[in-house]
Amino acid sequence: MKFSHAVRRRVEFAETDMAGLVHFSNFLRYVELAEAEFFEALDLPLISANRIQSLGWPRVRVQCNYAEPLYFRDEVEVLIFVKAIKIKAIEWGFRIFRIEKDGSPTRVAKGTLTTVHVKKDNIDRGITSLDLPSELLAKIEEAPDDF
Amino acid sequence: MKFSHAVRRRVEFAETDMAGLVHFSNFLRYVELAEAEFFEALDLPLISANRIQSLGWPRVRVQCNYAEPLYFRDEVEVLIFVKAIKIKAIEWGFRIFRIEKDGSPTRVAKGTLTTVHVKKDNIDRGITSLDLPSELLAKIEEAPDDF
Amino acid sequence: MKFSHAVRRRVEFAETDMAGLVHFSNFLRYVELAEAEFFEALDLPLISANRIQSLGWPRVRVQCNYAEPLYFRDEVEVLIFVKAIKIKAIEWGFRIFRIEKDGSPTRVAKGTLTTVHVKKDNIDRGITSLDLPSELLAKIEEAPDDF
Amino acid sequence: MKFSHAVRRRVEFAETDMAGLVHFSNFLRYVELAEAEFFEALDLPLISANRIQSLGWPRVRVQCNYAEPLYFRDEVEVLIFVKAIKIKAIEWGFRIFRIEKDGSPTRVAKGTLTTVHVKKDNIDRGITSLDLPSELLAKIEEAPDDF
Repeated sequence: MKFSHAVRRRVEFAETDMAGLVHFSNFLRYVELAEAEFFEALDLPLISANRIQSLGWPRVRVQCNYAEPLYFRDEVEVLIFVKAIKIKAIEWGFRIFRIEKDGSPTRVAKGTLTTVHVKKDNIDRGITSLDLPSELLAKIEEAPDDF
Repeated sequence: MKFSHAVRRRVEFAETDMAGLVHFSNFLRYVELAEAEFFEALDLPLISANRIQSLGWPRVRVQCNYAEPLYFRDEVEVLIFVKAIKIKAIEWGFRIFRIEKDGSPTRVAKGTLTTVHVKKDNIDRGITSLDLPSELLAKIEEAPDDF
Repeated sequence: MKFSHAVRRRVEFAETDMAGLVHFSNFLRYVELAEAEFFEALDLPLISANRIQSLGWPRVRVQCNYAEPLYFRDEVEVLIFVKAIKIKAIEWGFRIFRIEKDGSPTRVAKGTLTTVHVKKDNIDRGITSLDLPSELLAKIEEAPDDF
Repeated sequence: MKFSHAVRRRVEFAETDMAGLVHFSNFLRYVELAEAEFFEALDLPLISANRIQSLGWPRVRVQCNYAEPLYFRDEVEVLIFVKAIKIKAIEWGFRIFRIEKDGSPTRVAKGTLTTVHVKKDNIDRGITSLDLPSELLAKIEEAPDDF
């Protein structure tokens, strides 16, 4: 059973802004990368579609505390973990670190992201929430409280 | 004394993702647009710099609840308001609406954004928090509790 | 018959990068905004979809010369025009201006963008190029050589 | 002497658009990643700054031909190479490939990017072009014509 996943990625130039730092919205894109690789590690699709509908995970809530800036070419690690499994939703926790030259991590942000499992009609855009897929429930568990 | 500001903007193509919706991180960029125009309406700079240092407003916390999706070409209205004035920080509240064809607003998201006033050394990147500028305090007030 | 369209938009914070300028890739997003509003002015859809397939205009070639930088809050005008109508493609020309405080335009970039009309199967992703729609051909013409 | 560099990176969710493909402007951000790592491989800074001025490489021309789409989670390889060394500019060539499951590359785009070496005054924003740095000239050469 899996409850966490970590990914690394370097800050790219277009992710910075005129303040010289990574734009705060891009931290959330880094989190999404960790979510995508969590699903890949489970060999389950994050998104799928047929002619009628698409299955996916829209975000219904995000919360992030920023402690330190990130700079161009910083090596970033995102740790994502399952904070709570709900009937139709997952509440993810995340922590974002800068990996210093000596390999030690400095925490730069942390937060939570709640995603809901839905099917979306391809044409009329109608969105219906769904129970978590059983294939997913068979492979994940909540992180321990002290994680 | 000013405590709120509203801006409108249409959703652009590059702001959508393969789910056919505006990517959730872009909602936060819309909020930032409202913050920029709030400062402009006060005739105060959001950012300024000399050779030694820059003054700005890094984000230390964001929280957003997403209720409805936004689509390509939707007309979006962002209402930003001063929720709390702290010594060195502003806590903003925001609400995001889709403006329907008949002109009525549908709320699609709401949340809070906390920004801290800082000076940043241009070269060594040292960041020091500052009290809110007196020119700003002379022009803003907190929104009423029932706003 | 229409052959050109102009749109205005202010530079937003997240469009800048650590060099303090608008990132060069964002100039192309501004051009796309002008293309979207060109189609809207004709009351024709840029994109449409049914359960089987989507109609759209993928880009097959872009070329841009950058003469001047754009900065945060600059007012940008994009002028797009029909340079050549091909059987299955449109070659657009574009010019990007900064609108100075006195209202005068300074040209900051110019280039061309070639878009091809296609249908894309929603599921197997097969892409087939199509002749330009007759409704579009009934409403557009090439800009004069000296435009 | 170095004239080329290749980097790999997976397509991320926020890089796609509602057409289900990577937005065309993001191809250019991938190229920029290859440029950054080219400089790193030479142990030379892409950007540097003191209190007076910043040194950098603004883009003055880009041209890209798109042959195939890129999709979410595709593994992308960007090959960048020195096409021409000018007094104050570098003309880069690039090719972008999708790496298929069997490891074979499919070319999805190619183009050129011209960057100019400049110093920019930190405050008055004055930009002056500079000769290519001698440390760089000591380490790079033009790719062969048949590269």
